Amino acid sequence: MLGQMMNMPLLISSLIRHADEFHGDTEIVSRLPEGGIHRYTYSDAHRRSRQLANALGALDVRNGERVGTLAWNTHRHFEIYYGVSGIGAVCHTINPRLFPEQIAYIINHAEDSHVCFDITFAALVEELVPHCPGVKRWIALCGREHLPKGDKIPNLLAYEDLINSHSDAYEWPEFDENTASSLCYTSGTTGNPKGVLFSHRSTVLHAYAAALPDGLNLSARDSVLPVVPMFHVNAWGLPYSVALTGAKFVLPGAQLDGNSLCELFESERVTLSAGVPTIWLSLLQHLQAKGLKPSTVKTLVIGGSAAPPALIRSFDEQFGITVVHAWGMTEMSPLGTANTFKQKHLALSAAEKDKIRVKQGRPLYGVQLKIVDGEGKELPHDGKAFGDVLVRGPWIVASYYKGEGGNPLRDGWFPTGDVATLDADGYMQITDRSKDVIKSGGEWISSIDIENLAVAHPSVAEAAVIGVAHPKWDERPLLLVIRKPGMEVTREQMLEFMRDKIAKWWLPDDVVFVDSLPHTATGKLLKTKLREQFHDYRLPTA
Amino acid sequence: MLGQMMNMPLLISSLIRHADEFHGDTEIVSRLPEGGIHRYTYSDAHRRSRQLANALGALDVRNGERVGTLAWNTHRHFEIYYGVSGIGAVCHTINPRLFPEQIAYIINHAEDSHVCFDITFAALVEELVPHCPGVKRWIALCGREHLPKGDKIPNLLAYEDLINSHSDAYEWPEFDENTASSLCYTSGTTGNPKGVLFSHRSTVLHAYAAALPDGLNLSARDSVLPVVPMFHVNAWGLPYSVALTGAKFVLPGAQLDGNSLCELFESERVTLSAGVPTIWLSLLQHLQAKGLKPSTVKTLVIGGSAAPPALIRSFDEQFGITVVHAWGMTEMSPLGTANTFKQKHLALSAAEKDKIRVKQGRPLYGVQLKIVDGEGKELPHDGKAFGDVLVRGPWIVASYYKGEGGNPLRDGWFPTGDVATLDADGYMQITDRSKDVIKSGGEWISSIDIENLAVAHPSVAEAAVIGVAHPKWDERPLLLVIRKPGMEVTREQMLEFMRDKIAKWWLPDDVVFVDSLPHTATGKLLKTKLREQFHDYRLPTA
Repeated sequence: MLGQMMNMPLLISSLIRHADEFHGDTEIVSRLPEGGIHRYTYSDAHRRSRQLANALGALDVRNGERVGTLAWNTHRHFEIYYGVSGIGAVCHTINPRLFPEQIAYIINHAEDSHVCFDITFAALVEELVPHCPGVKRWIALCGREHLPKGDKIPNLLAYEDLINSHSDAYEWPEFDENTASSLCYTSGTTGNPKGVLFSHRSTVLHAYAAALPDGLNLSARDSVLPVVPMFHVNAWGLPYSVALTGAKFVLPGAQLDGNSLCELFESERVTLSAGVPTIWLSLLQHLQAKGLKPSTVKTLVIGGSAAPPALIRSFDEQFGITVVHAWGMTEMSPLGTANTFKQKHLALSAAEKDKIRVKQGRPLYGVQLKIVDGEGKELPHDGKAFGDVLVRGPWIVASYYKGEGGNPLRDGWFPTGDVATLDADGYMQITDRSKDVIKSGGEWISSIDIENLAVAHPSVAEAAVIGVAHPKWDERPLLLVIRKPGMEVTREQMLEFMRDKIAKWWLPDDVVFVDSLPHTATGKLLKTKLREQFHDYRLPTA
Repeated sequence: MLGQMMNMPLLISSLIRHADEFHGDTEIVSRLPEGGIHRYTYSDAHRRSRQLANALGALDVRNGERVGTLAWNTHRHFEIYYGVSGIGAVCHTINPRLFPEQIAYIINHAEDSHVCFDITFAALVEELVPHCPGVKRWIALCGREHLPKGDKIPNLLAYEDLINSHSDAYEWPEFDENTASSLCYTSGTTGNPKGVLFSHRSTVLHAYAAALPDGLNLSARDSVLPVVPMFHVNAWGLPYSVALTGAKFVLPGAQLDGNSLCELFESERVTLSAGVPTIWLSLLQHLQAKGLKPSTVKTLVIGGSAAPPALIRSFDEQFGITVVHAWGMTEMSPLGTANTFKQKHLALSAAEKDKIRVKQGRPLYGVQLKIVDGEGKELPHDGKAFGDVLVRGPWIVASYYKGEGGNPLRDGWFPTGDVATLDADGYMQITDRSKDVIKSGGEWISSIDIENLAVAHPSVAEAAVIGVAHPKWDERPLLLVIRKPGMEVTREQMLEFMRDKIAKWWLPDDVVFVDSLPHTATGKLLKTKLREQFHDYRLPTA
């Protein structure tokens, strides 16, 4: 027997309509790539999204068709989110920081019919044009007066001209909530980028969960500044959650330095901002150097990689700002966990609270999460056992766009590629990446734990640990070390330094001193490269 | 083109599983009708819900079958919510305060195969038995030792015996999220009660929205005590939202007096409670009389009818407790609006904030809401125009159980029967019930506004305003007044008192002094009765 409630699909268009109707005069403020601050309201954004919808119709953009963006966080990108998804087309956000060949691959793989770009990326677009013959029109996000000069970009339109030539009389269509709404490619360390195709349903459900008090805690009393780019997993869903809650939205454009952010924090009374650790490290240094103290910021959400404990503590003690640790990935829309306290934690000491805060947090309702061993057996929630993190839920990927990479699921669960512990209170702590964990005699050794220990040695600048083949144990850890300039430390001294600080069987079988270590574009250790390099390395214990 | 996210139904069972996995040791505390305080955890509740699921299977309860409850707010009722809905059956909560004939009607209309009852209702059940031949078993919510004596209740089981004789090994089934989950009858002032049949989808979506910062603002740092009964629209959805958020749950059983509530507030560190105005009025009097101050309560949610402004102010000023005004109804699961501030309101004076607080609040995302005039034309959000409140959304009723009353919708919208204004910020204020509004010359007059004005006269004990037929204006207001004992006031004095305080054409055409006014069981004016009584009344202006 079915219930007798209204059959209303969860559609992205209903978010912007809600914001317009009940938060019509709440502001969206943008720092524009072409210069200046732009200021308008949810009602304006809704009106222009409807103009865009009509414009897209006139350009013959059909249901399911992909419209690409190469754009900063601005009001125009926000309108594209709503205008494109709203008509039933797919908003395909592209990371402009990738290599041009990757971008061209992605545009061609997605078969984007139109690409919208901020004028800061004009040179990039000129480079892309010859490699992307499928793009019918390139739309510069500016008025006619800022259009890129020259004729290297064919079929070039100015966004402002485009939408201003269309009426705002438009009724958002109703359709299946499982319709594709947006597309974002992950840039793995191996193979081609793979597309994650979100749906209206997944997006709206994620927007609810993200706004919860134990998520990002968003309300109409907030002013939200996403430093995380709108080309990176929909800026963690914030463009949807702010409309859902009627929070003010502050978009920093291309200027993400400490000074520019602080200016917006103060002028727009920002209460919450979100970004990766490096952004907050540089902000912290800026605040300390200038002796500044943000007067309205209450929360900084940190994701992308683990937040250093000292960073969390400094913001808390020096600025009264709570750093909320969150975890997820493109395949998860992205939010999986967020770190907030339970009632029983409120009375703990600062030191005890710190121990909780460094973890990645608890799963939001909607995300099922478990850790499993190599055989897929679920591991206990004891804060010690670590295993592959598997997730499932209505905003978790089922398969990649066009079936790329085959079925990514394991018995219906998505393997995140992260390795973590779960404690009795449900807090997850990432200990490694699945592919970096060292499998020694059937047991797992965390490469990150050993690295963290090694860099604590005063002579060590950087360290990496990888598993190397071993005839008896399958794999054993090899420690690679870059010494600080002018500092000395021997293999034996390194091992001695670590000996009483980790389990005996975790101690690396060898130490190799190197001059450099390979990194990804985003600064992460490129362990695939290291494993190739040391593939035939013979451990002294072998 | 469809998105490629996991196809996971929104099911009630996933709420209790989430609470078990990530909030396993968080407590659920109940005051038992048979005496004493019961204390256990979400893990215990989940375990016993699974035992109940097995027990229901053994009793041959099928998908869609209705299981009734006549029960207070306790852990057992909580288990029934999850156990019954979890297996795909329908949890039918019945208001034990209705007349026995109404209850029998409801049980028979719903075709409940089983009815679970608290032993405080044993006498009621004995009375019901002969009139409810379709009930296969009556399940007393107690252990064998507290079973009602005698043999007036056939096929009587003790709940504790029932579940203890079954294993907790049970996997919740996956099924269509639109499957019916629970059933609640509305007791209108006319006609038979009508059933609202909620679905898993509507319940889960409502649970997300209710927990939002601008909803009831629920987190794992909360301890929540619902005074609103679990037989009244699922206790406003709190049994679901607490599991979603991992909040502690405190269930007051049958004792809702100020003293009993205060005891639980303190011993269980309650942060949020929810109920109707009369409960909070009596609590306020209790606190003032005893000189008590709750030490952990931050929020009292008020719904069911409008909260008196003085009540809101007293709790704020004397106890630092925020009263959150909310509005909804059974047909809305029930939440439609909640009253929280926007960022721009935070700097307002206390007096200005009070003006906002007395309103019923802003719609939560998921509820579309509009006000329309007699012709269905949408009215402006200006805080002045008032009209019928229409709503729609995924947790709003589409039709009543078994099609009772035909199609209740108007062009796809549910007419709430309330009349309200909407201001520019989206705050709704109820001004009347649709059927009580007086339609004079095509314009609407709010009966409540005139009543509020009339009772401000020092000689008036109670007042009612109804529309009476008028040959020229269709209807004109008639004011009915009960004078305070020993006080005098004439027709002319009453009219004179009101003359400069309302629009001239709102002034009643006549005043009639009466000794009593008819009320519903819950204390509301029974205007249908008054309209019958004064059906042939001839106004002096007619």
